[in-house]
Amino acid sequence: MIGGSLLRAATVAGWTAWGYNRSAPGVAAARTSGFDVGDDLPAVLRRAAENDALIVVAVPMPAVNAMLDAIAEYAPGCALTDVVSVKAPVAAAVRRYGLQARYVGGHPMAGTAESGWQATDPELFREAAWAVGVDPGTDPDTWARVTRLALDCGAVAVPVIASEHDRAVARISHLPHVLAEALAVAGARGGDLALGLAAGSFRDGTRVAGTAPDLVRAICEPNSDALLAVLDETLTTLSEAKKSLSSDTSLAELTTAGHAARRRYESAQRWEITGIVPGAAGWLEKLQEAGRAGGVVTHLTPATGSD
Amino acid sequence: MIGGSLLRAATVAGWTAWGYNRSAPGVAAARTSGFDVGDDLPAVLRRAAENDALIVVAVPMPAVNAMLDAIAEYAPGCALTDVVSVKAPVAAAVRRYGLQARYVGGHPMAGTAESGWQATDPELFREAAWAVGVDPGTDPDTWARVTRLALDCGAVAVPVIASEHDRAVARISHLPHVLAEALAVAGARGGDLALGLAAGSFRDGTRVAGTAPDLVRAICEPNSDALLAVLDETLTTLSEAKKSLSSDTSLAELTTAGHAARRRYESAQRWEITGIVPGAAGWLEKLQEAGRAGGVVTHLTPATGSD
Repeated sequence: MIGGSLLRAATVAGWTAWGYNRSAPGVAAARTSGFDVGDDLPAVLRRAAENDALIVVAVPMPAVNAMLDAIAEYAPGCALTDVVSVKAPVAAAVRRYGLQARYVGGHPMAGTAESGWQATDPELFREAAWAVGVDPGTDPDTWARVTRLALDCGAVAVPVIASEHDRAVARISHLPHVLAEALAVAGARGGDLALGLAAGSFRDGTRVAGTAPDLVRAICEPNSDALLAVLDETLTTLSEAKKSLSSDTSLAELTTAGHAARRRYESAQRWEITGIVPGAAGWLEKLQEAGRAGGVVTHLTPATGSD
Repeated sequence: MIGGSLLRAATVAGWTAWGYNRSAPGVAAARTSGFDVGDDLPAVLRRAAENDALIVVAVPMPAVNAMLDAIAEYAPGCALTDVVSVKAPVAAAVRRYGLQARYVGGHPMAGTAESGWQATDPELFREAAWAVGVDPGTDPDTWARVTRLALDCGAVAVPVIASEHDRAVARISHLPHVLAEALAVAGARGGDLALGLAAGSFRDGTRVAGTAPDLVRAICEPNSDALLAVLDETLTTLSEAKKSLSSDTSLAELTTAGHAARRRYESAQRWEITGIVPGAAGWLEKLQEAGRAGGVVTHLTPATGSD
């Protein structure tokens, strides 16, 4: 779904783009829609190598190694990015395959509950935040090229190093999945009566529990360290709320903190990072700092010799 | 917001309805919209008594006693219902004021994040589930009258006894609030970077944390026993998920159970309770059983002598 949407969005934006999918029906569906998609991975990758293409790995984490293995064989010199939901494990795999020189990780924060070609949408990335790696050693040309792709798809680029990305998404993507699953379980244990009385708060709070279990696992499990840390934190928050409710019949602390947090989220404003030239002195450190402070890249500052 | 929406909906449905609000701006806003609302509680209640009106108490739980006190003084013989988010504590208060003979509890499962006259909506209850009490001793005429009000507002009536209602809403309304608050807190602790990367799962999972803390407390705290029980259950679910993630890097059990639960919720079908005549032999037991099994009342079966 993400890969197909990216193929559509990049094509609309004027990129020459082609793809590979292991699923014959997926390939057929994309071709019927007029897209250049094949099921011969070596051929697709050789073509990438011949054209110095930017390769985007758009598979769940458990399938990343197989892709990198093929890339290392057929297109080891290509610029490389990915749209996988975790970044440090992908970066580690990229290093294992010796592909780190022209790798810049990416992660568009866009829906994943649906899957397959029929769910693709060229507008999926519009206004979305698209994390783009700024780890030490990042190649400026590849960074600019990956960022250009994100911007051309309608997203804004959020510069972030892999480990900080993974800790952040544990909080705002993986924990939401875990809590939604737990809430759904608690609701269903109330039987037909409880489910029949359920309204907006339950519907919204359990929405992402509608995602296929294997996909949720593929998203959350590779980030288990960061997820465990924030899950621990949340168990403490909930245990304290329970204690306060039990001893003082009060949810004052939890509701005050939760409301303030939601208000902070609602009022958060993206601000534009400007004047940082990829490859100039200190560019990575400046981007890291700006990303931490909520800054986003909405257009690229050109540099001599960059792509 | 609930009371004003009810006034609007009942008026649209042809009921002669009038209201009381303690807030002068609230009264003025309702009058400007052409509704018959006053700020003189004794006068409004005397009028109710003169007209044998059905009184609907539409205040948060902490304000219920003051209302019942006035009703006991000025309109003790009136049929009485309420739209408060918990039912056993209201029923207990009603008994303390000696008003139980013509009381039937109610609870429309409709939005509460907004408040005040400007948030009222005559369509608020359309297709909503509206819990209507069927506790032992329920007066059939009052039951039919309260159910008629719910149906006329566009809702379906879910027959349920007070204690079962309270346990059910702890699962599908109060727990969602608690988890949303905890999720919002966890996200905001990730700072501007995490909030900037937050997308649909965080937005939907924290939506009800946007409700005013005092309102969340007024909804959840009076149901502390049932909420504590399901919170305990959920802490166990989350602790087990943590253990499995930690030891086996697996969320298999949680995601499978959560997905099945969400699917059950999505596919739950309301079915119509038919042929039960209020006041006929065993009518309350039949309605209790049907409500537990997901049944709803969509039209009333008339009985000789009922309202």
